Amino acid sequence: MSLNVASDRCLNFSAGPAALPLPVLEQVQSELVSAPGCGASILEISHRSKQFKEILADAEERLRDLLAIPANYRVLFLQGGARLQFSMVPMNLLGADSHAAYLLSGSWGKKGLEQAKKVGATEIVWDGADTNYDRLPTDSEWSVDPKAAYLHITSNETIQGVQFAKDPTVANDVPLVCDSSSDLLFRPVDVGQYGLIYACAQKNAGPAGVTLVIIREDLLERSQASLPGYLNYSEHAKEKSLYNTPPTFAIYVMGLVARWLQEEVGGLARMHERNLAKAKLLYDVIDESPDFYAGHAQPADRSLMNVTFRLPSDELQAEFLAEAASHNMSGLAGHRSVGGIRASIYNAMPHANVETLRELMVDFRSRKAS
Amino acid sequence: MSLNVASDRCLNFSAGPAALPLPVLEQVQSELVSAPGCGASILEISHRSKQFKEILADAEERLRDLLAIPANYRVLFLQGGARLQFSMVPMNLLGADSHAAYLLSGSWGKKGLEQAKKVGATEIVWDGADTNYDRLPTDSEWSVDPKAAYLHITSNETIQGVQFAKDPTVANDVPLVCDSSSDLLFRPVDVGQYGLIYACAQKNAGPAGVTLVIIREDLLERSQASLPGYLNYSEHAKEKSLYNTPPTFAIYVMGLVARWLQEEVGGLARMHERNLAKAKLLYDVIDESPDFYAGHAQPADRSLMNVTFRLPSDELQAEFLAEAASHNMSGLAGHRSVGGIRASIYNAMPHANVETLRELMVDFRSRKAS
Repeated sequence: MSLNVASDRCLNFSAGPAALPLPVLEQVQSELVSAPGCGASILEISHRSKQFKEILADAEERLRDLLAIPANYRVLFLQGGARLQFSMVPMNLLGADSHAAYLLSGSWGKKGLEQAKKVGATEIVWDGADTNYDRLPTDSEWSVDPKAAYLHITSNETIQGVQFAKDPTVANDVPLVCDSSSDLLFRPVDVGQYGLIYACAQKNAGPAGVTLVIIREDLLERSQASLPGYLNYSEHAKEKSLYNTPPTFAIYVMGLVARWLQEEVGGLARMHERNLAKAKLLYDVIDESPDFYAGHAQPADRSLMNVTFRLPSDELQAEFLAEAASHNMSGLAGHRSVGGIRASIYNAMPHANVETLRELMVDFRSRKAS
Repeated sequence: MSLNVASDRCLNFSAGPAALPLPVLEQVQSELVSAPGCGASILEISHRSKQFKEILADAEERLRDLLAIPANYRVLFLQGGARLQFSMVPMNLLGADSHAAYLLSGSWGKKGLEQAKKVGATEIVWDGADTNYDRLPTDSEWSVDPKAAYLHITSNETIQGVQFAKDPTVANDVPLVCDSSSDLLFRPVDVGQYGLIYACAQKNAGPAGVTLVIIREDLLERSQASLPGYLNYSEHAKEKSLYNTPPTFAIYVMGLVARWLQEEVGGLARMHERNLAKAKLLYDVIDESPDFYAGHAQPADRSLMNVTFRLPSDELQAEFLAEAASHNMSGLAGHRSVGGIRASIYNAMPHANVETLRELMVDFRSRKAS
């Protein structure tokens, strides 16, 4: 059998599904037809087999270790992406006599709110629309009603490139719900500050098709039996993510990514250092020449995951993208709703690839800046 | 890199996730690190990339060809399995002033009904409980109220091993909704007889993590904007399965399975012949000695996918399973809710493997039957 090999690979700046660590892909490839101890592909084994239960337990254990998840939190492996969580969060957590609070720092938060409005009363505690979602609020700019059922935030907005650099503090006991779909595992997180964290995996944590939910146990009591079965957190927790057939292969790959973070990267503090260094390569170029590379986000709230900027004209942007493509770089066009350039440099993006992009940015500027 | 190879593989009789065609697995393996024309793994490419859109369109086209899906039907690739469909079907199709009709031929139909009851009024048109779900009703045993919003059936019950051998006829215009999760693509189907067909892929059509929905266009009009966004068929149809990130890799594998059916098997009529021949190997042994191998389903309604039977004692069953394991056969224990033996012999199960199981059955009987 002939294999397509690593040297065929481009520099993949896709916003998601995004680049995975090469050692993970190589292991998946080696085991694809027959996994050790399975006598079959991981794609073919029963979710109730001893082998898969080990894969599931291993993935959970590694994630618990990396994120130091406290014992009173449950870890669920679901399907449906963040979009299904946009509905599951209010359907499970928002009672009839309460309301849900949303802090809007970009496009994804707004989409989450849209679904919550179908379920019950909502409140916007802060909305970054006035400055086109280029920053996060200061502590004095917002507060949350202590009677709110929960406060929802989006830790990283992929389209605008705005990210919480540290865990936000909520002044009262309102459970903090975080959509961490595009940055889970990018740094150590104090899970105890949150009531619920959810993340589709396909940006920073694994392949498309699996959605992680980390939920504090007491919040499971809010799930009503009248909910559609698949949408009930409590059911999934009771069945330990085997309420129905989970996305077995995607969970296996996510577990391998977690192992890569533990064994090859050395944990999330080390990963965070790497991510800071990678992002600095690009933001430094932007800061050197803001008239040529105009960053979208304010410096204090810049994303380490998605570096968003514009060039002086659409023509120069098109030229830049064409040159990047000729250097084997892909996925750099900004989100279709905002345009511009977006370099997505998640955990798995090698430093050397970001260095190559930086070199192009510097070279392109030296040739084109007036 | 060392690869685990085909000779390491067992004879996999798992009920699902289940065996996939070996040529499909080998292609997935060869392309795993870098897919032709992608410069990346399929696991890493954007769902909005040209490459993935081609994969999606190709998978749909092959399924349309295999099943001769009429032009007025939409094909959707979703997540959440049959369990999410159990809720989505009534939430989308059952209006406030109507009711849903269910024909119960086994455990899965009952689970579907359970979710529909949370949504609105329901009616059971027939229930096989009296004979422990060992048969389907005759035409004279049931009818459906013409005012029903839809009639729901389960084309194959994996636990009991009962299957519709042909498309059922509904005497009026009530849309027929079919859970075909465990037998989609096992034979040609007259899609025009159905209003909606849904199937998780992991038994007969692909890996876990993708759920196919084939829906007649006029039924999309029933979906209300108040539905949770991810649960709205109409939204998914409008966005051509890109309402959010779909399970990209699982769709890719499903497309390869469809190509295997077209190019290596030669279509669903040929597949049906193969499936009839494989099932006959086992049912003939059962019919030769019903006192030793007691089949669960009545002969007319036997499943070609899941052959269910019991041995005279639990001890003999345990012995049979142990001997099967020593001959490298796995996945033969019956569902935990009913026990016994279950040989799942979906499309991808090679004839030779069923022959090997048949030989064990004959040999075991010759040694153990009194």
